[in-house]
Amino acid sequence: MSETDEGGRRGRTRERLMDAAFEVFADVGVQAASVEQLCEAAGFSRGAFYSNFSSKEELFFALLAREHERQLGAMGQRMQEAVPRLAADPLDVDAVTQSVLEVLQKNHGGRRWCLVQHEFAALALRDAAIGAAYAANRAGMIREVTALVEAAVGSLGLRFTADAELIVDTCAWIYEGALTSGLIAGRTLEQIDASVTTPIAVLLLGATAPA
Amino acid sequence: MSETDEGGRRGRTRERLMDAAFEVFADVGVQAASVEQLCEAAGFSRGAFYSNFSSKEELFFALLAREHERQLGAMGQRMQEAVPRLAADPLDVDAVTQSVLEVLQKNHGGRRWCLVQHEFAALALRDAAIGAAYAANRAGMIREVTALVEAAVGSLGLRFTADAELIVDTCAWIYEGALTSGLIAGRTLEQIDASVTTPIAVLLLGATAPA
Repeated sequence: MSETDEGGRRGRTRERLMDAAFEVFADVGVQAASVEQLCEAAGFSRGAFYSNFSSKEELFFALLAREHERQLGAMGQRMQEAVPRLAADPLDVDAVTQSVLEVLQKNHGGRRWCLVQHEFAALALRDAAIGAAYAANRAGMIREVTALVEAAVGSLGLRFTADAELIVDTCAWIYEGALTSGLIAGRTLEQIDASVTTPIAVLLLGATAPA
Repeated sequence: MSETDEGGRRGRTRERLMDAAFEVFADVGVQAASVEQLCEAAGFSRGAFYSNFSSKEELFFALLAREHERQLGAMGQRMQEAVPRLAADPLDVDAVTQSVLEVLQKNHGGRRWCLVQHEFAALALRDAAIGAAYAANRAGMIREVTALVEAAVGSLGLRFTADAELIVDTCAWIYEGALTSGLIAGRTLEQIDASVTTPIAVLLLGATAPA
């Protein structure tokens, strides 16, 4: 077998372990899930697991990176479509709200991803080493989203009047909070998307000004 | 024993159970904590527990109500001190940021409360009945804070231009998100308080206008 085939098979094993682990995390809970359960669900041995990941936490971070990659790609694409339409009047709150909705809607990983991420954050709150890795991961994601948002803001002839990374972090807190509390309250993802766009638009408008 | 003494003793039993349960929740985790552990920590029998609470979830809601009561009282008092100082220039972002800091700082229940609340929200995400009670509880708290904030905004000759309850809910999402991710990242409560005040002030200014 060539090196490339070997690499491809290894990649597929990782992907299958990650897919199966996500379902187990969502079904039984991140804390309760054992490496044995993850292996059984994926149909792999413990040996295959440990040649790919050192722990279920490392696997979770691989899941998180894959989800961030997906969300970042989707956001970038939607911004390219939504932002130019704002050029005529970039300070109009209704137009900005509509654009925020177009960029955000269906961008999250849904109810099961929210659940898994919330439970993993609970582990990160209790364990300093997991916490440090989780925080570094989040900071990297926020930096990448900030670069996208700053480019969009700049293309509209605007600039941030407050720390752009803090404002983007805040948009993420708003979105995650609305998602968690909306799902707990039994609201649909569409209702959550619709309710969260106004405060995010108000915040973005309040934190930007003509360049 | 008079009825009042009986009521007082019962009240103290409840308080001691709640205090002990909070420590157990924070030490071992909300999900892992058993009614037996709560009783042992409080020095009461299972009988005493079940004559006060039907489950550990009901006890958590009593804890939540007590914490909300405390936070609401503290916020009301701090607003009475901070808001009149804004009268001279209620639209100045630095002054509003300073007032937000004065109202919010040290208002949360600290690291252990954040942990317990985060873990309980994970249970609420998984269980529809717990979720409904949690959502109703949160909605009640947001309504009460909104009444305080609307009175403060009105006293400054301003009004909300967006749904006041949604804006207050958003401030809570921002605060909770900053607290959770700040604690995960190892930041101090003072650093978290300081970082979160600017986006909250920007949001409040963007969502209000002269009445």
